[in-house]
Amino acid sequence: MSEHVVVIGAVALGPKAACRFKRIRQDAKVTLIDRDDVFSYGGCGIPYFVSGDVSEANQLRSTAFHMVRDEPFFKDIKGVDVLSSTEATSIDRANKQVHIKNLKTGEESVLDYDQLVIGTGATPRKLNLPGEDLENVFYVGNMHDAERIKQGITQGKYGKAVVVGAGFIGLEMAESFADMWGIETTVIEIFDQILPRMCSPVLARMGQLHMEEQGVNFVLGQTVSSIEGNGKVEKVVTAGGEVEADLVIISAGVIPNDKLARECGLECSERGGIIVDEAMRTSDPLIFAGGDCVIIKNAVTGDPMFLPMGSMANRQGRVIGGNLAGHDEKFPPAAGSWVVKIFERAMSGTGMSLGAARQAGFDAVSVMLIMADRAHFYPEKDMMTLEMVVDKATRRVLGIQGFSAGGDAMVGRINAVAAIMKFQPKIEDVSNLEVAYSPPFASAMDVLNAIANMADNALSGMNHGQGPDIFAEYWADRESGDYCFLDVREHADAEPFLEKYPEYWHNVPQGEIPQRYDEIPRDKKLVLVCNTGGRSYEAQVMLDALGFKEVLNTHGGMAVIKAYGVDI
Amino acid sequence: MSEHVVVIGAVALGPKAACRFKRIRQDAKVTLIDRDDVFSYGGCGIPYFVSGDVSEANQLRSTAFHMVRDEPFFKDIKGVDVLSSTEATSIDRANKQVHIKNLKTGEESVLDYDQLVIGTGATPRKLNLPGEDLENVFYVGNMHDAERIKQGITQGKYGKAVVVGAGFIGLEMAESFADMWGIETTVIEIFDQILPRMCSPVLARMGQLHMEEQGVNFVLGQTVSSIEGNGKVEKVVTAGGEVEADLVIISAGVIPNDKLARECGLECSERGGIIVDEAMRTSDPLIFAGGDCVIIKNAVTGDPMFLPMGSMANRQGRVIGGNLAGHDEKFPPAAGSWVVKIFERAMSGTGMSLGAARQAGFDAVSVMLIMADRAHFYPEKDMMTLEMVVDKATRRVLGIQGFSAGGDAMVGRINAVAAIMKFQPKIEDVSNLEVAYSPPFASAMDVLNAIANMADNALSGMNHGQGPDIFAEYWADRESGDYCFLDVREHADAEPFLEKYPEYWHNVPQGEIPQRYDEIPRDKKLVLVCNTGGRSYEAQVMLDALGFKEVLNTHGGMAVIKAYGVDI
Repeated sequence: MSEHVVVIGAVALGPKAACRFKRIRQDAKVTLIDRDDVFSYGGCGIPYFVSGDVSEANQLRSTAFHMVRDEPFFKDIKGVDVLSSTEATSIDRANKQVHIKNLKTGEESVLDYDQLVIGTGATPRKLNLPGEDLENVFYVGNMHDAERIKQGITQGKYGKAVVVGAGFIGLEMAESFADMWGIETTVIEIFDQILPRMCSPVLARMGQLHMEEQGVNFVLGQTVSSIEGNGKVEKVVTAGGEVEADLVIISAGVIPNDKLARECGLECSERGGIIVDEAMRTSDPLIFAGGDCVIIKNAVTGDPMFLPMGSMANRQGRVIGGNLAGHDEKFPPAAGSWVVKIFERAMSGTGMSLGAARQAGFDAVSVMLIMADRAHFYPEKDMMTLEMVVDKATRRVLGIQGFSAGGDAMVGRINAVAAIMKFQPKIEDVSNLEVAYSPPFASAMDVLNAIANMADNALSGMNHGQGPDIFAEYWADRESGDYCFLDVREHADAEPFLEKYPEYWHNVPQGEIPQRYDEIPRDKKLVLVCNTGGRSYEAQVMLDALGFKEVLNTHGGMAVIKAYGVDI
Repeated sequence: MSEHVVVIGAVALGPKAACRFKRIRQDAKVTLIDRDDVFSYGGCGIPYFVSGDVSEANQLRSTAFHMVRDEPFFKDIKGVDVLSSTEATSIDRANKQVHIKNLKTGEESVLDYDQLVIGTGATPRKLNLPGEDLENVFYVGNMHDAERIKQGITQGKYGKAVVVGAGFIGLEMAESFADMWGIETTVIEIFDQILPRMCSPVLARMGQLHMEEQGVNFVLGQTVSSIEGNGKVEKVVTAGGEVEADLVIISAGVIPNDKLARECGLECSERGGIIVDEAMRTSDPLIFAGGDCVIIKNAVTGDPMFLPMGSMANRQGRVIGGNLAGHDEKFPPAAGSWVVKIFERAMSGTGMSLGAARQAGFDAVSVMLIMADRAHFYPEKDMMTLEMVVDKATRRVLGIQGFSAGGDAMVGRINAVAAIMKFQPKIEDVSNLEVAYSPPFASAMDVLNAIANMADNALSGMNHGQGPDIFAEYWADRESGDYCFLDVREHADAEPFLEKYPEYWHNVPQGEIPQRYDEIPRDKKLVLVCNTGGRSYEAQVMLDALGFKEVLNTHGGMAVIKAYGVDI
């Protein structure tokens, strides 16, 4: 009898593992089971289905050549049997059996397996709020949720939406409501920034400001205490107030579906998630697991990490498919790369944010740079803001995050750093990273090389200063007289600020410092500013050499001061 | 007395090394000398100046904040002395002196140095053709050449241009003539493809076809024997014929300017170029060299490599600047990344092309994939063609090249592979490379992961077949009866070909193979075709398992067949 592989869960990981194994082992029998009758869909595409960018739900479960990945597709095209609307109720490892139940008929039966794959995914984290069961309150867990949400939208049912949680899905859903449907949308987040833990508060604020410009409202640092309404939702209540809503989306992260694995005695993490080795094998050598229900290894810290992403699931699925067939394939530790499109901007990152790095015990610092993403003389370009997080003692690059209108160009840089994260790169590895050069695509000294050079200069003490957040604090404290805000651009650039703030704003162009440094006070903290932080860095080097004591360079200059929204 | 560093050559490397050193060592004296009175310009921007994308020549020598990098700029802003129009005639290493000559006054003098940097760049390779001295025949060696060419163009002097050499600069110049100025432009290349050695003939042909669609003519595989005219150029003559031209650009590569180094006894390569160590130090510990005049190490082969690119020069300049100040900085081996924009497409690569790899002695194969550069259900996307070159025995990734309308997205993938080239990646390192995922930016199984998976399947023997070049040979030989061209798409897709070629074209949709394989001849070579090579791969796996002997999958399917220009 031919070998029988059973795969539990038919979204992302499961189908990939099943089909890969079946291609290698045409003689084997593969059974793919799923609780749902809609499966093998691209869940990350749900916000684009809701927005209308993707017009039909079936597009998310179709191949590039427009075939719907349903039961006949898997049978005819892939040679894989699918049991949909079928729940795996328990795994009997001793007898190598999966107990299943048809959710439509209630019929229970047993599948014998030779090898088993668990790809049970994750479930939206429930907040268990009072009023959560009101009509028009949704979690975004599957295509049915997505279709219900979109149906109401296209019927014009909603005028005001609240999204609880400012992570990827929350921001994408908020964009889809506000951008395409003109729904008044408010995002409520328990942390005081969007994308908490993913990037610094500074980058987060740039993203938030851009979304606010596009009409999305934010309530940050607030916990939702209840959802209220009469049958249908009417408002969301926080300690700080109420927000009216006829549509509520709760996107507060996901938790791994490890119950089945846990109940049959497979090793699981205390904090949730099935533990697998590099081959994606569980503690039972006949059982593999992957995707949103497992714990993998963090390439930066070596610690366990939960990284529920469709891309991880797909790549892991292929590794499992090979290993089911006797290959010796390994899935490497992950850096945790991400990207999110928010209206006309993208935010992306890999590795750890400054906050996450410090929380993990690193003595980390970050630097921020804003620079054109191609030759500055090339007419079409975007300004890219990058923040690089480095460990002071070892000079290791711990992470990099960014914000730009040129999403593809930025993601390309993030991916290049992600590619070397498992080799534990140092600053010099990024300083000299070989970015392909031609003026329409990069600078001769590319923005990626430049951010690493800046980190090098920060660690060596040559570039000392602050980002726009600390600048804002200094500026708010300007009446203390402790600070001299020194604009080192040419006079014409500085003039509007000199006129507006004659008491606080000063101007000595960088090239005139050797002649005019006597004009600069030695008893104040010198807060240097230029357009993007380049000339102010050179000015800082000069002033340091001239014996000035507290010279503070504003990284990213007026460009990030503006993007951060400092009131100046 | 303060230390004196002399830097010979003030384009790219020289200024970078000089300014970096000066920033670290404010007390030192730095003298930057250059033969030319126009220096510190972005030479790679010349085609964009000629096209008019960059309107003024000075933009190529201006900072991002619009200051021209002239003598006062270097003096006031950078603290570096510039001697322009000054040639270094010899280096006296024993006495640590550079002999110089002012090219305007003829005055000769001597500069004492403590440390020296040679950044003398490269010179266009002369073809020494009869007629090369005719009016309106140009090499593109510096800004003066660029300004003369553009002046003639803006004055409407030229109607027909010939570009000799289909490398980066040749293609960029051809685009600038044809696209912006409507000049009838012909590119003549001695090799039988554009971008020889940089990419495969297949990718090259895709680029060529795109340029031809935009009106550029190509004469490939032809050596120019003479340039003819009466005072002014009138035509370019090859063995195969003549091409009329009132403007000729010769761009046949560059040769390193190592004469000065060679004459003072510094170690140089037999084939040209100054030899430097990882610190960019020459055989004299007091002398550094970098940029287009040096030989560096190839990250793939470990062999010496000449890689004249402005980006290399800039990064090397910073390393030299640090090392002049006593740092211990190293410049890593390079993979040889490149990118060129040709009209609405980009071509890019890193590492070795298939031809270059085989020439270097690798038992290499390549695979070709065409796929959307983001989620296929996302409305805005481009099809990206990638070709990956791998070593059969070791599974090492030797190079990757591509062609796409989505330049930034493609370059980002190339850069990610380039980033790991120095770690000698294997196929699985790219299969599992962590591409940041979100539908607007990548596929869950990204095109980059997919090309590596395809290479894996090729090496394991699961995916066996050919690119469009070999397909074209089979197709040309279709009357031999040796081949069955089997379209495994749905009937509607295959129908136009079935009608046009009823004798040669056959159709069994992939999902129907298990039922219909008796219709497929067993005595012919089965050439499988689908849209992009995905379904035909699955069909191949099925047919192999069914015992068919010669099953040949067409990589990239109809999409690359079309892009390659097969007459079908």
